[in-house]
Amino acid sequence: MKLPGQEEFEVSSAHENVPEEALESGLDSGPSLDGPSDTDSKELGVFKDPLLFIQLNELLGWPQALEWRETGRWLLFEEKLEVGAGRWSAPHVPTLTLPSLQEFRSLLADGFVLLDCQAQSLLELVEQVIRVESLSPELRGQLQALLLQRPKHQIQTTGARSCWGSIPLRNASHDEDTPLKPQSPLRQKLPPGAEAAVVLAGELGFLAQPLGAFVRLRDPVVLGPLTEVPLPSRFFCLLLGPPTQGRSYHEMGRAAAVLLSDWRFQGSVRQASNLHDLLAALDAFLQKVTVLPPGRWDPTARIPPPKHLPSPHKRHPSQPREVKCLSRRQSVALAEDRHHRGQHAPSLELQRTGRLFGGLVQDVRRKVSWYPSDFSDALHPQCFSAVLYIYLATVTNAITFGGLLGDATEGAQGVLESFLGTAVAGAAFCLMAGQPLTILSSTGPVLVFERLLFSFSRDYSLDYLPFRLWVGVWVAIFCLMLVATEASLLVRYFTRFTEEGFCALISLIFIYDALGKMLNLTRSYPIQRPGSPAYGCFCQYPDPGGNESQWTRTKPKDREDILSVHLGLVNASLLPPAECAQQGGHPRGPSCHTVPDIAFFSLLLFLTSFLCAMALKHVKNSRLFPSVVRKVFSDFSSVLAILLGCGLDAFLGLATPKLLVPTEFKPTLAGRSWLVSPFGANPWWLSVAAALPALLLSILIFMDQQITAVILNRAEYKLQKGAGFHLDLFCVAVLMLLTSALGLPWYVSATVISLAHMDSLRRESRACVPGEVPHFLGIREQRLTGLVVFILTGISIFLAPVLKFIPMPVLYGIFLYMGVTALSSIQFMKRVQLLLMPAKHQPDLLLLRHVRLSRVHLFTAIQLACLGLLWIIKSTPAAIIFPLMLLGLVGVRKAMEWVFSPQELLWLDELMPEEERNIHEKGLEPEHLFSGSDSEDSELMYQPKAPEINISVN
Amino acid sequence: MKLPGQEEFEVSSAHENVPEEALESGLDSGPSLDGPSDTDSKELGVFKDPLLFIQLNELLGWPQALEWRETGRWLLFEEKLEVGAGRWSAPHVPTLTLPSLQEFRSLLADGFVLLDCQAQSLLELVEQVIRVESLSPELRGQLQALLLQRPKHQIQTTGARSCWGSIPLRNASHDEDTPLKPQSPLRQKLPPGAEAAVVLAGELGFLAQPLGAFVRLRDPVVLGPLTEVPLPSRFFCLLLGPPTQGRSYHEMGRAAAVLLSDWRFQGSVRQASNLHDLLAALDAFLQKVTVLPPGRWDPTARIPPPKHLPSPHKRHPSQPREVKCLSRRQSVALAEDRHHRGQHAPSLELQRTGRLFGGLVQDVRRKVSWYPSDFSDALHPQCFSAVLYIYLATVTNAITFGGLLGDATEGAQGVLESFLGTAVAGAAFCLMAGQPLTILSSTGPVLVFERLLFSFSRDYSLDYLPFRLWVGVWVAIFCLMLVATEASLLVRYFTRFTEEGFCALISLIFIYDALGKMLNLTRSYPIQRPGSPAYGCFCQYPDPGGNESQWTRTKPKDREDILSVHLGLVNASLLPPAECAQQGGHPRGPSCHTVPDIAFFSLLLFLTSFLCAMALKHVKNSRLFPSVVRKVFSDFSSVLAILLGCGLDAFLGLATPKLLVPTEFKPTLAGRSWLVSPFGANPWWLSVAAALPALLLSILIFMDQQITAVILNRAEYKLQKGAGFHLDLFCVAVLMLLTSALGLPWYVSATVISLAHMDSLRRESRACVPGEVPHFLGIREQRLTGLVVFILTGISIFLAPVLKFIPMPVLYGIFLYMGVTALSSIQFMKRVQLLLMPAKHQPDLLLLRHVRLSRVHLFTAIQLACLGLLWIIKSTPAAIIFPLMLLGLVGVRKAMEWVFSPQELLWLDELMPEEERNIHEKGLEPEHLFSGSDSEDSELMYQPKAPEINISVN
Repeated sequence: MKLPGQEEFEVSSAHENVPEEALESGLDSGPSLDGPSDTDSKELGVFKDPLLFIQLNELLGWPQALEWRETGRWLLFEEKLEVGAGRWSAPHVPTLTLPSLQEFRSLLADGFVLLDCQAQSLLELVEQVIRVESLSPELRGQLQALLLQRPKHQIQTTGARSCWGSIPLRNASHDEDTPLKPQSPLRQKLPPGAEAAVVLAGELGFLAQPLGAFVRLRDPVVLGPLTEVPLPSRFFCLLLGPPTQGRSYHEMGRAAAVLLSDWRFQGSVRQASNLHDLLAALDAFLQKVTVLPPGRWDPTARIPPPKHLPSPHKRHPSQPREVKCLSRRQSVALAEDRHHRGQHAPSLELQRTGRLFGGLVQDVRRKVSWYPSDFSDALHPQCFSAVLYIYLATVTNAITFGGLLGDATEGAQGVLESFLGTAVAGAAFCLMAGQPLTILSSTGPVLVFERLLFSFSRDYSLDYLPFRLWVGVWVAIFCLMLVATEASLLVRYFTRFTEEGFCALISLIFIYDALGKMLNLTRSYPIQRPGSPAYGCFCQYPDPGGNESQWTRTKPKDREDILSVHLGLVNASLLPPAECAQQGGHPRGPSCHTVPDIAFFSLLLFLTSFLCAMALKHVKNSRLFPSVVRKVFSDFSSVLAILLGCGLDAFLGLATPKLLVPTEFKPTLAGRSWLVSPFGANPWWLSVAAALPALLLSILIFMDQQITAVILNRAEYKLQKGAGFHLDLFCVAVLMLLTSALGLPWYVSATVISLAHMDSLRRESRACVPGEVPHFLGIREQRLTGLVVFILTGISIFLAPVLKFIPMPVLYGIFLYMGVTALSSIQFMKRVQLLLMPAKHQPDLLLLRHVRLSRVHLFTAIQLACLGLLWIIKSTPAAIIFPLMLLGLVGVRKAMEWVFSPQELLWLDELMPEEERNIHEKGLEPEHLFSGSDSEDSELMYQPKAPEINISVN
Repeated sequence: MKLPGQEEFEVSSAHENVPEEALESGLDSGPSLDGPSDTDSKELGVFKDPLLFIQLNELLGWPQALEWRETGRWLLFEEKLEVGAGRWSAPHVPTLTLPSLQEFRSLLADGFVLLDCQAQSLLELVEQVIRVESLSPELRGQLQALLLQRPKHQIQTTGARSCWGSIPLRNASHDEDTPLKPQSPLRQKLPPGAEAAVVLAGELGFLAQPLGAFVRLRDPVVLGPLTEVPLPSRFFCLLLGPPTQGRSYHEMGRAAAVLLSDWRFQGSVRQASNLHDLLAALDAFLQKVTVLPPGRWDPTARIPPPKHLPSPHKRHPSQPREVKCLSRRQSVALAEDRHHRGQHAPSLELQRTGRLFGGLVQDVRRKVSWYPSDFSDALHPQCFSAVLYIYLATVTNAITFGGLLGDATEGAQGVLESFLGTAVAGAAFCLMAGQPLTILSSTGPVLVFERLLFSFSRDYSLDYLPFRLWVGVWVAIFCLMLVATEASLLVRYFTRFTEEGFCALISLIFIYDALGKMLNLTRSYPIQRPGSPAYGCFCQYPDPGGNESQWTRTKPKDREDILSVHLGLVNASLLPPAECAQQGGHPRGPSCHTVPDIAFFSLLLFLTSFLCAMALKHVKNSRLFPSVVRKVFSDFSSVLAILLGCGLDAFLGLATPKLLVPTEFKPTLAGRSWLVSPFGANPWWLSVAAALPALLLSILIFMDQQITAVILNRAEYKLQKGAGFHLDLFCVAVLMLLTSALGLPWYVSATVISLAHMDSLRRESRACVPGEVPHFLGIREQRLTGLVVFILTGISIFLAPVLKFIPMPVLYGIFLYMGVTALSSIQFMKRVQLLLMPAKHQPDLLLLRHVRLSRVHLFTAIQLACLGLLWIIKSTPAAIIFPLMLLGLVGVRKAMEWVFSPQELLWLDELMPEEERNIHEKGLEPEHLFSGSDSEDSELMYQPKAPEINISVN
């Protein structure tokens, strides 16, 4: 086969089936450079070609002072020497002129081609090359001397660009490192097995006619100082000639180098047996080039490397538009194929067994085989930083939800319960669950429900915790029933529409709560306007030192307003209330309980922590500072924002409201034991009646748990160990029992924080040849990081002396940040923005290429309406049926099939199982005969999508 | 000549010599589309070709339901039909494949070419085209029917993209608007005289072999419904054939359309006399295309239109690198030519006459000829919005500097003087000056000097205003001497180094003052910490209602701290201080004068107005909202921020410090008349001694005035009426006399606000063919806008009732914003950022391509050191010699010639007159023989630079 190389590189990001070990063991950096995955290579029939480093040495200084100088180099992209600045240009997509390619072709056709040359050194090579008939013997001598002259290399000694630095060099066999010469940092970046190619080009006055030579060495040889990096060279190309108008050896040399940097051309040249093969490869290259017309494009503009390189099947634009010729079935399948890459779980875990608990058994069976590796896979330094990161996020979450829950339940639960529950439930889940990357947490919807439940039981004077216990018991029973009946298979109906509606709601709850809490603060610490009793507080002593009758005599006044408290003849001083109480006095007056400045300072803290977290988050995209520094700032943005807020607060020392943390290890509610009594003061039948709210809560927990699970198990994360929808739900049910019995909060999977967990465990190819973007390889799937996080959370119960310094406004600010970040990351919000965007300015979304704008807007409007409805229901007394409405989202989506065509839904959302089946069975009416224009969509857009809801907490 | 078209378009942004009238009269939109300026066309020997609208109609639906459909269109860039979405794609740079061009060429070579066809209608044209030998008569009939079939056009009826909407259509002669058909909005955008070209392409099963036809009509004819817009068509191209594997008529059609959209090809085809000419033009096109290698570039990616199109001389990359062959002299000249585009004043105004007041006389003479047009040129609606914009900026400036000046001089001057002086001096300057676009204002450096002068006279108990009068008289005398000796010619030594040092200093003063003022506020309104006497204020009544001895008896206490004021037996209440005083009581206690909440609220106002102004400024780059809305938000960002701050303040109604505005028209200093008495309480010899500080002030005023003038008169603004350095200085001198005599502030040109003025008067080509970027044409140079602004400022003296609602923290916020904006806009700051930026992430600045990074850093470090020194001097008692140090900047720059090579200075700064002379006389050592690589710098970088210091105030 003659099609090696190119395909390998381009499909390398799809590594689902490569064993983890192969990727980890030093070849980590390789996939994008020195080989495709097995499946790909089989499929395309290619074999592994080594990466080629190509260097252009140019002959300068004719006629005075001839010297060779390295003026360009290529790996994936081109780097030019910037002589004045003495540095390499940024890597960019090489652009050529057609004449330079044609001139190179004709020089090659007339020149000297030597395939499988057996030279063992530069000298031998040069001797063979100069044996061209056209040269006179003395010219040969001059030429030989010239070719053996040491070229001048541009070596950047700053380590600024090194990124393979930590990878040990494996391929030392050919290395001839001269220790005196500064080691090129580029050398560190090249993967083992890389070869070099040298192109020598220039104008040489004493030549009568152009001299072209192309040599393929049988065995790659280190050609002395010819290349910047001491790699063994495989190809050698010489392009010299007299200075002629209209002929640029520099451009010809670049053309040769760019050709060699093309994997397909390179592969053909490796196989070529004669000149004819060589020229055929060049012509094949020409058939595939992209042509930009003059006048509309500056030929000297440097195009930055694209984020994604084209995949091989996109390399045939000159073919008649294939898609056009496809049957309806095929074109739909193609569109599906494209779309499915970004879609959720593979169907293996979602097949009905038809047996009771069949899905659960399958999940357990599948997971057991991975169990040992779930611990061994965690042995990587990255896991340490993931633990720190997620620990801080979990603690922040536990603190804040603990505070909110304490508010909502009037202390029936509190921060201590929150910590304890998070630790116990989280650790247990990490040990047992189907998807151990999930982080359990209190979530917004469950909090809302618990608040409703509490106010219900308060209104009817019920004993809350026992009532709650029974609700929990029933929920566990219902959930087990759902597990038994394999109800988790319904997740296939959770399309992006449902996910987004749910996520938007959670985010809005975060935002609303943060702002609401902040406004409440200004009510507790009122702002002192002119005219309000800013000064009305004094300290009255009960035991006067003088005549007691005098002290108690007060002077009546006729004013009835807020100024009606007056000083009469009392033994009093202007001591602040706290000191007054200390000295045995009583603070008297209308404003003794108002603390000035707190309201605005709290607002400042709130805004500071919010804006600081937002700003730090974006530091990642800045150009300043090394990337490590930026990554730290960005990853720990909310931790840093909290620290800043605390520092500011401590610096000014104002009496801002602080986090209330228990100092003793006992339930927050006074007088209860850890085990909740099964009935308490409630009548016995309440334990049965609790089934009704439990039904609603079960729906909520099922939706909350499974939507998150669907998002986490999306195909774009390339998870290898599979999901465990049934097992996860089973674990949640068991933990419901436990937490209810202990009076701890209820836990389900938390979308935002789990995604942050996965994000911190990303494996990426470390290959960073200049211009190359690292590829996402997968997630370190293991149970250890989560486990350690929750153990640490448990230990943090004893952190009270530290945590009590955290001002509440700072935490509210972080919650606002989490809500805003989560909200802005979903595609739904992008479509909402489209509503406000003039058509001219809209981004070139694939969606907009295929669906009419009015239909897009209609879809967005329906989503907005659903969200509005959910919000209204959540805020009214009908809130208790809120879980049902979440389920209603699926119904709305189903109903949309009457309004939108399957094609539209394919682009706007995903297809539901029936729709997919319909498409496969009946075929679809083609959108239009011209739908073949899809083939012109940029490949960029088909790359695995970034997760729709990808927010890092902290 | 056969080189028309392309060049016209590309050089159209250089319109310096085109009479203003021609540009204004409806042709305003034309330059970039229907013709070059006279000079350009002469220079390049081109003539005017009309703009060509090219449409691709594709035959779809074979074999079932044949229909023609418009699937692509070209003006400057390509727009593709997105069938699914039913809309046009965003305009983008067209990309072709080489085979499609080659196939088109062979089809053309074998096809039917008809030049100067005399058909008068579509029917006649079709009849001529189908007379090809290869067709049988019945095929001809079928084909004729097919070609006459009405094509389906994609017409966007939303007006979202219209931007030529207001231009009346001139070329109505050929129009055949069918009123029933929706009018294409594109029609509105096309300039008069535009022609159309139609490409018909598709697969037609009944044809045995491909059919290619190319027709050039002698007279353009409206071909019925063939084109989307009813333009007369000049070219007609038919590409039909049987469905064949490996041959795409769609791609061929696109190739034909892209070729026709190339001005050079189009020009050649207009002149072609036979097929051979046509093929030659195609081959010439091929020689100039840019080739992107496959595998490194996705051929289907859409490239957005570049900001600048390549200029014609860059269209020869395939030639041997010309620059390399140039002599040293030439290459330096080339570099200079490039650099000079962004350099300051043309030399005409800066030639020494050698006569006393020679420069002034020349300035006046030159300006007199423009004087009538200085008023007539203002008759444009744009001037109204400019007036509003600059008026608000001027008033804000007057208010803030008035406040600062009032502080600095302890009321010797104040807001009233500031308004009056601004109005009088500004209006007079606009009427008389050489550069009437300049806006006079108090400036930071002069303010610093005045503050020093005041503290000096206070320290020595001098009568300030009379002393100041003499300083002013002497300054006027010195300035007049400078005018007489043509000292303004020294501005040639003010390189960017000096400008940037000066601008950075001004900006830093703004920032420092804003922050300092804000901190001072928190001192006036202390924050009440726990333990501080927050509650220590009561109201004591002098006339008690009861036993007087009791009321006055106080209870002694042994504590000596801040709590030592105690209540004893007094007749007191807790009334707030203001009400207490009203009721005849005395507020007593340590904290009666502290107002709570004010400090933090002020800080909030400060941050809100700063951040709001910053955010609104960036709304311009957002994609949301129509551009008009964004422009309003962006242009009026600081006005809106002020309004928001005032609204917030009014809403809460707190006693924040407000702007103090005089309510009566009289000098702020009590008891002085408007005319300052010449001696006052000072000894007579002080009027002579004042010459010493006056000397320093003269230097300062000269520097401040002339640096601003140099910046305003930069070549990149394309000013037509020239500068007037001598005349401007003369005006400033005369106004010094006037303002000193009246005790008003001193005025010089204000950089920031004058640039904003110019910015608001930009003339841009309105042409916006899809994808085209509007071109900067020049500035509306006139005297009226400035004059009206200052008249309005004068009237605003009576605005006191409104202005007194503006809180000071809001104004400080706006000042911080002005400082930060001004500071961040200078190249110096970009270089400072480079210091913190890893080499890998540095942007691809031209500077960095030519100068070693270490040298760039050295230059930046020297600039930083100078700035630090200036700041230190400004802050120490030596501040009085601060003007001398400014002059020292020029010296430092001169000394740098010893450290940096002229080439480096050329890239880092500009050359000083001697250096330029040296280069021209001696020639320069070539940087390196390889300096030819300059020819590969992107053309983008040689476009006239955006002004270095371009900050819009308000």
